[in-house]
Amino acid sequence: MKSLSKLKPYVIGLDLGGTNSVFGIVDSRGDIKATTSIKTQGYDDVNDYVAASVEALQLIIDQVGGIDTIKAMGIGAPNGNYYNGTIEFAPNLSWGHNGVVPLAKMFSEKLGIPVALTNDANAAAIGEMTYGVARGMKNFIVITLGTGVGSGIVVNGQLVYGSDGFAGELGHVVVRREDGRSCGCGRNGCLEAYCSATGVARTARELLETTEEPSLLREMILEDITSLDVSIAAEKGDKLAQHVYQTTGEMLGEACANFAAFSSPEAFIFFGGLTKAGDLLMKPLKASYDKNVLKIYKDKAKFLISGLDGSSAAVLGASAIGWEI
Amino acid sequence: MKSLSKLKPYVIGLDLGGTNSVFGIVDSRGDIKATTSIKTQGYDDVNDYVAASVEALQLIIDQVGGIDTIKAMGIGAPNGNYYNGTIEFAPNLSWGHNGVVPLAKMFSEKLGIPVALTNDANAAAIGEMTYGVARGMKNFIVITLGTGVGSGIVVNGQLVYGSDGFAGELGHVVVRREDGRSCGCGRNGCLEAYCSATGVARTARELLETTEEPSLLREMILEDITSLDVSIAAEKGDKLAQHVYQTTGEMLGEACANFAAFSSPEAFIFFGGLTKAGDLLMKPLKASYDKNVLKIYKDKAKFLISGLDGSSAAVLGASAIGWEI
Repeated sequence: MKSLSKLKPYVIGLDLGGTNSVFGIVDSRGDIKATTSIKTQGYDDVNDYVAASVEALQLIIDQVGGIDTIKAMGIGAPNGNYYNGTIEFAPNLSWGHNGVVPLAKMFSEKLGIPVALTNDANAAAIGEMTYGVARGMKNFIVITLGTGVGSGIVVNGQLVYGSDGFAGELGHVVVRREDGRSCGCGRNGCLEAYCSATGVARTARELLETTEEPSLLREMILEDITSLDVSIAAEKGDKLAQHVYQTTGEMLGEACANFAAFSSPEAFIFFGGLTKAGDLLMKPLKASYDKNVLKIYKDKAKFLISGLDGSSAAVLGASAIGWEI
Repeated sequence: MKSLSKLKPYVIGLDLGGTNSVFGIVDSRGDIKATTSIKTQGYDDVNDYVAASVEALQLIIDQVGGIDTIKAMGIGAPNGNYYNGTIEFAPNLSWGHNGVVPLAKMFSEKLGIPVALTNDANAAAIGEMTYGVARGMKNFIVITLGTGVGSGIVVNGQLVYGSDGFAGELGHVVVRREDGRSCGCGRNGCLEAYCSATGVARTARELLETTEEPSLLREMILEDITSLDVSIAAEKGDKLAQHVYQTTGEMLGEACANFAAFSSPEAFIFFGGLTKAGDLLMKPLKASYDKNVLKIYKDKAKFLISGLDGSSAAVLGASAIGWEI
């Protein structure tokens, strides 16, 4: 690998999220040399998405010295299958929700380099293990709280891919059996429907519509409210907004208590936009975990927020897969 | 190992269940040469339990040629910690529910041989992987349906012990948040409170007490009804008894659909007394799984019942740990 790295010193990492696609060109030490992004949505045909991606990429590829300096590309994507490089039935992707998209192959043909792909949250877990707060850990769970809720599970120092490459979809664990919220996956009551950034905004809208409680959020157009608006209001002392994060944290804590019974991780690591709420989310989360977890697991797991900036962990994780091709 | 095996051709396996403790002396080919058992309950002091065990064991040890023919002992026990040989806060054990019991060390001192210990369900999983229906599988989950509900999870061909040796307590995943049944672990709504043999009997008793529905089970004393009575009544066409297994299977199917989102196993393997109900349990279980599982996992996992007789899988699994000391 060393000698190859000298010849081709970079890999491309793509963090393909439900909202944004972030590209980074990364060297073998994990430094991101150049970065760009496009919107993930707005393309009904995956060919248009790939074409727009390659157009954006070309600029930063030229910046680092051209395609001959690039060894490979790694992609972290929702419902990404590590075993065959496809995205399969991804509920949050307009061009990928209803079939099997051979995205690794498509990028490989356009760019002329090898491309590998995994779940976006698995990529984040690889990033945390290689460069982040999970360095040295053998058993941990990364939970991504973005447009959706994803997860990357590491057991005995290895990512859990399962029998089909799709293990670790903890956002689609059903947490409410009765009157569960509809989820993008077509089912009801999934963790993602409550504890994603969109879930938080949805909880706020529900409370605004079904209660008379005063709130700073009532000054906004209901449909425009985001999880960030809710956290800003909560920081200002808004009781309704604080209640939204309280219940979101409690549900995540209950869910993590159940996850502990599976792999008893050394740490839960939270990653993504919602973690910007900090203690607003993490305090009720930890309190709820302590209250709900089985006695033998009490006071064992750490609760950490990713220390890697923005989407860097996912980009680095995706790029790390590129080195391994 | 081969040469040691010739000198000491046997290991002892102990399947320590909430009701019975089954001992087997096993040779290197997995043949059980002699077996005995004692009741697990009825000992408030663990010293008395170990003394009774050793007394029962002595008879079968003599049968195979004395303690010098025994290489080691492996124990499968509830809340058994593989890393340090202890049983910790086991809710179903009168002598082990409230502390840390160094059971491996105690047996080792009494018998003069090395002793290792793991979760009883993990032992069952090792048994299935070595001698049973999981031969050749790298990713599967064994769910034990006995006095309690346990699990042994295999990922990438390795048992999942987690950061502390206690991973895989899927019987204590909370499946009912609202008005959940009390569980032996001190919490409410655990899978075990519904889908164990005792949970099935409890469901039957609840239906008999809260409805007027006719049932063969009304001829019995309420407290004496067991899961076996319920399955016998169901086989005779008793609607109430059939309903009990229907709802039990449905809950297990819902739970397995959530477990799939964790490790996407190739198979779920069911083990223990409740599996004797056969299709009565497995049909609603599979139908519920198909209905509830995330689209990407549909029609992938096999649902199998352990082919190893009675508690053999657990005894063999426990003994397999003995060979590895």
